[in-house]
Amino acid sequence: VTFQLTILGSSSALPTSSRFPTAHLVNHDERFFLIDCGEGAQMQLRRYKKSFARISHIFISHLHGDHVFGLFGLLSTLSLLGRRADLHLYAHAPLENILLEHLSFFNQEMSYSIRFHAIPPKEVSVLFEDKKIEVVAFPLKHRISCSGFLFREKPRLRSLNKQAIEKYQIPVYLRQSIKMGAHLELPDGQLIDNSELTTPAAKPRSYAFCTDTRFRPALASILKEVDVLYHEATFAKIETVLARNTYHSTTHQAAQVALDSGVKKLIIGHFSSRYPDVTQLLAEAKEIFPECSLANDGDTFNIG
Amino acid sequence: VTFQLTILGSSSALPTSSRFPTAHLVNHDERFFLIDCGEGAQMQLRRYKKSFARISHIFISHLHGDHVFGLFGLLSTLSLLGRRADLHLYAHAPLENILLEHLSFFNQEMSYSIRFHAIPPKEVSVLFEDKKIEVVAFPLKHRISCSGFLFREKPRLRSLNKQAIEKYQIPVYLRQSIKMGAHLELPDGQLIDNSELTTPAAKPRSYAFCTDTRFRPALASILKEVDVLYHEATFAKIETVLARNTYHSTTHQAAQVALDSGVKKLIIGHFSSRYPDVTQLLAEAKEIFPECSLANDGDTFNIG
Repeated sequence: VTFQLTILGSSSALPTSSRFPTAHLVNHDERFFLIDCGEGAQMQLRRYKKSFARISHIFISHLHGDHVFGLFGLLSTLSLLGRRADLHLYAHAPLENILLEHLSFFNQEMSYSIRFHAIPPKEVSVLFEDKKIEVVAFPLKHRISCSGFLFREKPRLRSLNKQAIEKYQIPVYLRQSIKMGAHLELPDGQLIDNSELTTPAAKPRSYAFCTDTRFRPALASILKEVDVLYHEATFAKIETVLARNTYHSTTHQAAQVALDSGVKKLIIGHFSSRYPDVTQLLAEAKEIFPECSLANDGDTFNIG
Repeated sequence: VTFQLTILGSSSALPTSSRFPTAHLVNHDERFFLIDCGEGAQMQLRRYKKSFARISHIFISHLHGDHVFGLFGLLSTLSLLGRRADLHLYAHAPLENILLEHLSFFNQEMSYSIRFHAIPPKEVSVLFEDKKIEVVAFPLKHRISCSGFLFREKPRLRSLNKQAIEKYQIPVYLRQSIKMGAHLELPDGQLIDNSELTTPAAKPRSYAFCTDTRFRPALASILKEVDVLYHEATFAKIETVLARNTYHSTTHQAAQVALDSGVKKLIIGHFSSRYPDVTQLLAEAKEIFPECSLANDGDTFNIG
């Protein structure tokens, strides 16, 4: 099952010639989830050849322009493309009215419906779930309400061995419970251990998105053992005061969160435009957490 | 004196992987005028290394998203960059309130003031003028109020010959009137013809921007002898019915306006995304008006 992240934008508030404002595309089993929608996100989707039609869920971390100004154009484009399916939009409450007023002027006739879901700003809450995946919002610490998102696969069932099915002639009505861990009792009363019948399910994979935020050590409990963590690193390690005052994080702080959480891999981004060359930022993060990569527009990472 | 057009965006409503929505940058004597501000205009300004600080006048042709959705991000960026100078925004009246509501949520503290000027939708009117240039708005024919813009240099004075100044010892107080065409009377009563004293001023140059619009032959009277005309050509020549119904123009219609107006050069753009290859559109326009070019993002044209 595909579980992949594509960086559509990696700048902070000021885009540069090589970095668009924040937008991430998560592909889980060929269903696309868009996280944040900075200006130009729709152009980046085109550029990286991502199907607009596969996006049905958009999550907005907070209502600063560099995370949301691409939304108006994208919603408009989806209508021009003749979309019919509902679009689910998860964001902090004030966006609903802004969007309604905007649409009432610029897009009187939309080809599809937008279902708005207000994100509870102060608690950990499940925004979306189905059989395969769940998306959890959790509070970050920024100048305005801001949420991180955790994409977590649901635990999968164990796999039945084909050989075991044939050998023990396992009837169909028993198979589901065996996948869930049950042992098999044969007609003669003999008990076959589940481990002889199944192989363990792949471990559920997870991706967490944390931007924009001050250094927040308490995140470690939510991010525990996440596979891939994206954490903003707007500033170099030396700028702790600036980071604190602007409610952003340094490279070392992002890496410290990754280390404390025990994640497998860290991706840093949301770089201030003051750093035309970000290799030094990567080097700094690696001092604390070596398994770290830079987010560059167009980069794709496999989750897990 | 520089008079140059740079295409920042050349798509119609749906951007493509190579075309951003409409935005044009006019450089007149190193002062920049932005015409329309489709999504991503600020990223294109970065990409083509155009100084944000030199823009003090923005003209918006009409209030469809693909001509205006880049405005919110650009205005926000100008504030983040610490701009102090007033910014003059010329657009149809409804934009003022939309902008005020938008700014009151997303940008409570702006570093500069926006001076909003409502464009009269139904008449030809001078929006801006100074000693060097004037900008005239004129009505186009679209689904909503839409204006074209004519950038026209002011007539310049004739140039005094250095040799004539020395030969006739022309006193300073007479020079301005001679530049304006006066003859020179020498102390002995002899009259020296102005043509012996001056060379003609360079002819004032002009650029006209026409999008979005239905075919409108009456434009010829306004566009008479313009140097460079940008006219939308959303559709191929065969699509006259579609063009009419959507209030757009075909290649042949754009070229016909250029021909009727006696312009020197035509640039076509605002291509529908249905044409991944637009060379056929250029060939069609050239059937009627050979001095025609395609607008591609990043192209620069000298005016005059």
